[in-house]
Amino acid sequence: MKNIAVFGAGRSTYYLFEYLNRLASEDSGYTIRVYDANKANLEAQLEGLTHLQAHVIDVASPLAVQHAIMQCDVAVSMLPPALHMKVAGFCIEHEKHLATASYVSPEMRSLHHQAVGKGLIFINELGLDPGIDHMSAMRIIQRLKNSGAEITGFESHCGGLIREEDVAGNPWKYKFTWNPMNVVTAGKAGMATYRHNGLLKCIPYHSLFRRTDTFNIPGYGRFEAYANRDSLSYESAYGIKNIPTLYRGTFRRPGYCSAWQVLVQLGMTDTDTILNQPGLNGKEFLSFFLPDSNLSMQESVQQLTGAGEAEINALEWLGLFHEQALPLSQGTPAEILLELLKTKWDLGTNDRDQVVMLHRFSYRKNNEEHELNSWLVVEGHDHRKTAMAKTVGLPLAMGVRLICEGKITEKGVLIPVSAQWYEPILLGLEAWGIRFTETEEALPE
Amino acid sequence: MKNIAVFGAGRSTYYLFEYLNRLASEDSGYTIRVYDANKANLEAQLEGLTHLQAHVIDVASPLAVQHAIMQCDVAVSMLPPALHMKVAGFCIEHEKHLATASYVSPEMRSLHHQAVGKGLIFINELGLDPGIDHMSAMRIIQRLKNSGAEITGFESHCGGLIREEDVAGNPWKYKFTWNPMNVVTAGKAGMATYRHNGLLKCIPYHSLFRRTDTFNIPGYGRFEAYANRDSLSYESAYGIKNIPTLYRGTFRRPGYCSAWQVLVQLGMTDTDTILNQPGLNGKEFLSFFLPDSNLSMQESVQQLTGAGEAEINALEWLGLFHEQALPLSQGTPAEILLELLKTKWDLGTNDRDQVVMLHRFSYRKNNEEHELNSWLVVEGHDHRKTAMAKTVGLPLAMGVRLICEGKITEKGVLIPVSAQWYEPILLGLEAWGIRFTETEEALPE
Repeated sequence: MKNIAVFGAGRSTYYLFEYLNRLASEDSGYTIRVYDANKANLEAQLEGLTHLQAHVIDVASPLAVQHAIMQCDVAVSMLPPALHMKVAGFCIEHEKHLATASYVSPEMRSLHHQAVGKGLIFINELGLDPGIDHMSAMRIIQRLKNSGAEITGFESHCGGLIREEDVAGNPWKYKFTWNPMNVVTAGKAGMATYRHNGLLKCIPYHSLFRRTDTFNIPGYGRFEAYANRDSLSYESAYGIKNIPTLYRGTFRRPGYCSAWQVLVQLGMTDTDTILNQPGLNGKEFLSFFLPDSNLSMQESVQQLTGAGEAEINALEWLGLFHEQALPLSQGTPAEILLELLKTKWDLGTNDRDQVVMLHRFSYRKNNEEHELNSWLVVEGHDHRKTAMAKTVGLPLAMGVRLICEGKITEKGVLIPVSAQWYEPILLGLEAWGIRFTETEEALPE
Repeated sequence: MKNIAVFGAGRSTYYLFEYLNRLASEDSGYTIRVYDANKANLEAQLEGLTHLQAHVIDVASPLAVQHAIMQCDVAVSMLPPALHMKVAGFCIEHEKHLATASYVSPEMRSLHHQAVGKGLIFINELGLDPGIDHMSAMRIIQRLKNSGAEITGFESHCGGLIREEDVAGNPWKYKFTWNPMNVVTAGKAGMATYRHNGLLKCIPYHSLFRRTDTFNIPGYGRFEAYANRDSLSYESAYGIKNIPTLYRGTFRRPGYCSAWQVLVQLGMTDTDTILNQPGLNGKEFLSFFLPDSNLSMQESVQQLTGAGEAEINALEWLGLFHEQALPLSQGTPAEILLELLKTKWDLGTNDRDQVVMLHRFSYRKNNEEHELNSWLVVEGHDHRKTAMAKTVGLPLAMGVRLICEGKITEKGVLIPVSAQWYEPILLGLEAWGIRFTETEEALPE
């Protein structure tokens, strides 16, 4: 039970491999193979990790993937989510366990009964968000329930950000530390829904980045949160049915959301319309989204979107009022914007990213109302040893180890909301400096 | 070549059947069969039309459809667009011509070469809009080109509306005269794109109903137009490549767009999120889309969306500030809104609908700039003999007749942009009182 196959050696795998290499060095029973299509990338990612075996295969080829899966006990998919199902299908066929850090898709969920029938563990959402958020929330929920408390509110926020020092002069206070396209299309998958004091609330995409809340994390300053897609799906997963307040949000630094709202209002995040304008520059790109008028472009943006000086400055900083050619001139507006943002929000070699998570619980105990705040801040070391790689890779690696050691009795398509997962993994993470701080005092505004 | 099979006897078929019945009564060579799944509906639609044969079949059953197609020379699909391809597939297999009033889908377009190879005519978009719009525009474009004019601008608008007398007291000045769900989801399929004075313009859905233009149709008053999806696709279809201004819009009466914009802003036209709130009333439904606040609901709507008194009145008239239970309490917001609107915008027995179309051309001739306006207004007789049924059904019936009479030499998947179609059909429509008015004078504002 100690043959592990990892598919994909892309972004955010540094600590996954670091941990697995350490594991194999301490226990010669482990055989760990890493499969990736890109030889140079694979060699770079595994440099110095002498206990891992590198295998170059076409990870999109069913035959190659099947062959690799037949040799393992546990498969780990770090591939793009669209490719998970190929791995999952062979895991069912050849009766292997599976671990991913991705959201459970409907297709993945549909394998539950087959996985249970074959006694397989298909653990998903075992990264940061989803992942550490589930585990840290469930540990508190269980503790509060055990103490006889009635939980009346749960708000949870997470952001993959960057230290303020590393974004001086950048009005967005943001750089890409994970999948850039997910940042550009964030919120587009459907209305955000949540519950506030017993009332259902829905926020359409075009209002998402203006309906924000502000939070203060002691020692790290202020953060703004916009609502995540379907907060209410967590009711059953977390065993907190009919909780009056339930909200999940994403953190950005102040200034980002109101400026991003302007891009959304303009239509620049559209993913349906294909533009094709050779030599397109920033000013022309912006002009597509402005009505014909005698105003300056800045005034036109202000009139159309309600942008203020700060938002106009943020657009100016991106070059949207300039005549410099854009890196991409054919594609959807979102794709054109993405390539522009990549030139502006690229992580520098010595930049240190920052992962910020905050849970806020309201609960009633002995007829008294309480508020509990629990937060986590993890900072990266450089552009490769990122906080993102650490918080995504380590839970996954620790979960795989638990499976290999036979410590998991649950079967089927799972997410880590039971104590079997969160007790050992949260403890393991503390040894790597990933530790939540808790206070029953209200945070400063 | 005079065996016609019509599939579907739903809304907007009155004049199609009226015309075909007259045709068969004048020429005994015609055999016209009408197929519908609903016996009562079929009998009602064909009442008194003694030259048409009614056949009750399951129009979703391949066997039944195939059998019917084998007996005909020309198939007419009045089925929902999703079912056209079944009919089209059998038309290819059994070498029959096909006519529809629907937009050419990518699947339909993919049959072009097969249809050409078998010498078949697959005419689509042969109704009102699309249909009469193509034909009337092409007649003018051809005339202007023949006269040596250079066309510099083309704006085309159409609306399926209702006479002002029949919407007294209704602040929306609107009732459903065609597919209601299409009205609720209008504009959602992607950004509207058009060209203005040589510049590409894009309008995202959430701004569509606030970026309107106003037009005055002599004798019929003022209309507002919002942009239709992809105006630029008409460049090649109409042979007006690189025309500096090209815009297609949809007409509504003044007041509709600004109020609908509020519903869009709120998120009430969302088609992704499923709500399930037994006993839901209008006020609760509205509250889902409003932030938590101490304001009245009216004030909260105003603050969130910028609604003025007129828009608030329009929402009030729908019952969105009231506690009366809604007709539907489970479904997407768009579905819940649709069922509410059906109770408010239902066509009364004696209501008379109104179809309004306006083409505006700018052109240069002998170094002079000209403007040409061409408009059509058709009014219905009652809730069954509607202007919509007339303007959708008659072009289609006349087109089928042209095919039967062997007057069409074009083959393949077509839309009616060549003179073979538009000359005889526009002439035929005039005999039914469907006639455009033209002026070279600017319309009053």
